[in-house]
Amino acid sequence: MFEDKNTQRTPIDQLGEFGLIKKITEGVTLQQESSQKGIGDDAAVIAHKGKTVVTTDLLIEGVHFDLSYVPLKHLGYKAVAVNLSDVYAMNAQPTQITVSLALSNRFPVEAVEELYAGIHLACKQYKVDLVGGDTTSSTTGLLISVTALGEGQEEKITYRSGAQENDLIVVSGDLGGAYMGLQVLEREKAVFKVNPQSQPDLSQYTYAVGRQLKPEARKDVIDLLDGLDIQPTAMIDISDGLSSELLHLAEASDKGLQVYEDKIPIDPEVLGIAKEFSLNPTTVALNGGEDYELLFTVKQADFDKIKSHPLLTVIGHMTTAKAGSHLVTGLGQQIALTAQGWNPLSQSDV
Amino acid sequence: MFEDKNTQRTPIDQLGEFGLIKKITEGVTLQQESSQKGIGDDAAVIAHKGKTVVTTDLLIEGVHFDLSYVPLKHLGYKAVAVNLSDVYAMNAQPTQITVSLALSNRFPVEAVEELYAGIHLACKQYKVDLVGGDTTSSTTGLLISVTALGEGQEEKITYRSGAQENDLIVVSGDLGGAYMGLQVLEREKAVFKVNPQSQPDLSQYTYAVGRQLKPEARKDVIDLLDGLDIQPTAMIDISDGLSSELLHLAEASDKGLQVYEDKIPIDPEVLGIAKEFSLNPTTVALNGGEDYELLFTVKQADFDKIKSHPLLTVIGHMTTAKAGSHLVTGLGQQIALTAQGWNPLSQSDV
Repeated sequence: MFEDKNTQRTPIDQLGEFGLIKKITEGVTLQQESSQKGIGDDAAVIAHKGKTVVTTDLLIEGVHFDLSYVPLKHLGYKAVAVNLSDVYAMNAQPTQITVSLALSNRFPVEAVEELYAGIHLACKQYKVDLVGGDTTSSTTGLLISVTALGEGQEEKITYRSGAQENDLIVVSGDLGGAYMGLQVLEREKAVFKVNPQSQPDLSQYTYAVGRQLKPEARKDVIDLLDGLDIQPTAMIDISDGLSSELLHLAEASDKGLQVYEDKIPIDPEVLGIAKEFSLNPTTVALNGGEDYELLFTVKQADFDKIKSHPLLTVIGHMTTAKAGSHLVTGLGQQIALTAQGWNPLSQSDV
Repeated sequence: MFEDKNTQRTPIDQLGEFGLIKKITEGVTLQQESSQKGIGDDAAVIAHKGKTVVTTDLLIEGVHFDLSYVPLKHLGYKAVAVNLSDVYAMNAQPTQITVSLALSNRFPVEAVEELYAGIHLACKQYKVDLVGGDTTSSTTGLLISVTALGEGQEEKITYRSGAQENDLIVVSGDLGGAYMGLQVLEREKAVFKVNPQSQPDLSQYTYAVGRQLKPEARKDVIDLLDGLDIQPTAMIDISDGLSSELLHLAEASDKGLQVYEDKIPIDPEVLGIAKEFSLNPTTVALNGGEDYELLFTVKQADFDKIKSHPLLTVIGHMTTAKAGSHLVTGLGQQIALTAQGWNPLSQSDV
């Protein structure tokens, strides 16, 4: 952390445009049957049998990530994973990505290789093919634009808009970890600035820091729902905090909802860090971003299939639009949910 | 030119994230049958009957465009058109785009609206749907990332790799205009810097400046080939200069080629500007970028169908890999083509 491990620094100019592209793309193999043509032509050619889903994200240095504590390999992995999360949130399977990079001349070839090592690792992990992109110079900093394509069957694709009254609201995994991990990293960065000799001990924060630096997209949840033969009625991924995503679901479905504070899954380590930072863990779970868990609704009849699954937690149910969207606290108070988000204008899908 | 026509300046913060997204997306209607779900969910859903083609480009302020002479509306239009050009170069029809924007706080809401006015105009012109994107803040400047999806029939999709010996090499339109337009604009910018009261007279340079500021993708050529029942054997769009694209074609097809200097189509205005700038017009056509014409090969048997078409010019023919790739000058000399490109590492598809 905080040290430059790139001992070798080859300027990109030295390699040249075609040399860099060759380096980036060498070893890229296509593993998806639907990838008919990958890198190397004006466009990639994809042969999906089902519907194609497409989503895109832009990550910008200084806005979305801080290279003083984010290793480039992790960044590459995360840039892919957060996009795939949007594909899974449609109850579809990601199949291809394109990656565009803009980078200033402060990045040597070795840095680009590190970044792509993470991108390739994520491609391998999620079985998606890198089929195109664009590489360009930037006047400042690093920028990554990823577009993910996926494939879904018409009858399985799940929108935000399908939730019905009395449907159960379910979240995967646990919440607030990525945000608390970020707080820990920011604190250690501040300490490092004052004392560059300090060696941060992150051993107590492994889970939260891992959630921040190397989030995973919930392919396992989509596969699980498929295995349990559950068709969610509505789904969204949790990138901007639970509260904001609940409101998106409610609005798109023209319904209200009620969730219970004491049902919201939070990891014990995250509870501990929240205490250390004097933050209310529920607030962290509601408004902290970047968890990339899935939030979905299922029919009541599916309750038995999911009730004891360790990956899934029922946190509430849908009501009517008129009833509004509320959190029921541990003390039984109803609090209207607000879309605070955690980082306005920084990660907004349009 | 060179003056700020935005008299109203609403800070983006004042509108907020959701307000901005609403402004950007209001009035977006889906016109493609294949656009099953556009903006408003985790991902868009597309139902292509044929194959899906996908391509992406990144445009960065200070690298790819200079806002002192590029109007935002033109920039939005161009960002879309250059992407669609890659789809047409596959002999496919573009159907959807996603647009991601990063912008610093020096851009007011009105600037974003201007940019989107151009994007929407291009969507209308080329009948593509804006189905998603991402809007984010940037620490400096403006950045536009566009991904285009298109649809093509398996038997019509054209790669760079299919050219055969003796196939004819054809270009659409004329070359070098966009590059000379850029030179004119750069010269006027330099004049304006010295004398801000100067009013540039661009009336002699209308064609070239138009080619630079508002390039069109050659949908008409793809439609024409379809109408003439011509299946090109290989195709590429000319974004980095004729020379570089010829070499891509030759390499991908494992062939050589011969093109004739006196066949290369150059507009009279462009010839005049080249003279004014003491540049060799052939060099300009070979190495000047951003023409977005199509370069393709057809079987000799198709010659009669295209020989007198005003949009198309036969400039040479394919040979063997062993023979190499050459330009035959007006004096009959053979010169080996080199991939100079015009802006290394600035617009490189990987």
